[in-house]
Amino acid sequence: MKKGRLILIPSALAESNGTAQFPQHTLEVTFQLIHFITERAKTARHFLKSIGYPHPFDGVEVMELNKHGEDNLNELLQFCEQGIDTGLISEAGVPGVADPGGIIVREAYRKGIEIVPLIGPSSLLLALMASGMNGQNFHFHGYLPREEADLIKKIKTLELHSKQDDVTQMFIETPYRNDKLLAALLKHLAPQTDMCIAANLTAPNQSIVTKSVELWKKSGIILGKKPAVFLLFSGKLHS
Amino acid sequence: MKKGRLILIPSALAESNGTAQFPQHTLEVTFQLIHFITERAKTARHFLKSIGYPHPFDGVEVMELNKHGEDNLNELLQFCEQGIDTGLISEAGVPGVADPGGIIVREAYRKGIEIVPLIGPSSLLLALMASGMNGQNFHFHGYLPREEADLIKKIKTLELHSKQDDVTQMFIETPYRNDKLLAALLKHLAPQTDMCIAANLTAPNQSIVTKSVELWKKSGIILGKKPAVFLLFSGKLHS
Repeated sequence: MKKGRLILIPSALAESNGTAQFPQHTLEVTFQLIHFITERAKTARHFLKSIGYPHPFDGVEVMELNKHGEDNLNELLQFCEQGIDTGLISEAGVPGVADPGGIIVREAYRKGIEIVPLIGPSSLLLALMASGMNGQNFHFHGYLPREEADLIKKIKTLELHSKQDDVTQMFIETPYRNDKLLAALLKHLAPQTDMCIAANLTAPNQSIVTKSVELWKKSGIILGKKPAVFLLFSGKLHS
Repeated sequence: MKKGRLILIPSALAESNGTAQFPQHTLEVTFQLIHFITERAKTARHFLKSIGYPHPFDGVEVMELNKHGEDNLNELLQFCEQGIDTGLISEAGVPGVADPGGIIVREAYRKGIEIVPLIGPSSLLLALMASGMNGQNFHFHGYLPREEADLIKKIKTLELHSKQDDVTQMFIETPYRNDKLLAALLKHLAPQTDMCIAANLTAPNQSIVTKSVELWKKSGIILGKKPAVFLLFSGKLHS
């Protein structure tokens, strides 16, 4: 029997985006599915409703990745094994990027399941595009260390590598810790290093700004709990 | 006077994609523009036609980045300075990622021009999503060195760093050199290292496969001139 495919479905980055930020092809493929793997079922159902998902949820299987864990990947992929296409939905943005979706995709490959990524919003990609930094050499680090000494060391290392290799350094933070991270960045980076802060992406109050650490210091910025992507660059751009 | 915005417009990765892979919002914003900065005017016009761009081209300004060069960024951004929104279109995929668009975005920031990235297809993002590798730590390197000794050294370094830091290593190659790169990868990587090859993304014959170097060797794969993204991973995945 032919196995079902694992369909990677991008979800909205901000509330009230509706369908306008999703390609017709992404919507059509998603609307054909009635089996989903999600991080949180509630968020996923909310997202599906927001894009006009046409089926009543009582006939829809929404499994949670967290509740199953690595030991239960078999359970999550059972419908694919039965020949049924299954959607993987992240909490926000594209599955498998800045989230633990890679684990289930890897297991799908082991089982000979076809993977189909759909096109949609990614905060990392939008931030990188709009940063004006090097898009030909970039490194996403996820979250930086929380312990202060480790954080300072990491910030200095990222800045040095950016200068040496012309690499754009990207990272994120839990929103309630944004301003703590920002303070450390402004304190420990060189004044001429460029920093991009991309906040509230795709929302009406989206803000993407790149300027030197020196100018950020003067701006008196407070991020609050806005979801944000941070980028650093202290190298040279080549055409 | 309020300056015009620089709108970053994703373009198709493959022929005949039409509008189905572009969000309504991306199409609507693009259709309102009549000034574009492109790598090649011909490709950009072809793309605009393919998504149903409604204006006759004799009233449309299509500037070429290459012909202007870094010295002439002022010329390219002249319409933004005059208060007119201008679109930036890459040869394929999103501007500023795996292309030299960063230079013009950086100059736009210097001039106080607002940057607006639109959602659309990116081969790097689709490949990473579907790789089953680490999406919480990844590094895109652009093109690897061409000279054989440098290439071998680079391949070994990427593999070692992947193992040490659990980082996914991503790179691309000019299509006509694909099989030469592939031969070097299969020769110099450890058998248990995972490699993903994502080829012909978004085309009807799209192929995305992750398996160990050992299994790739047995597969007898020949890539030919398919546009492809390569990914390596020799680390561990964490949930």
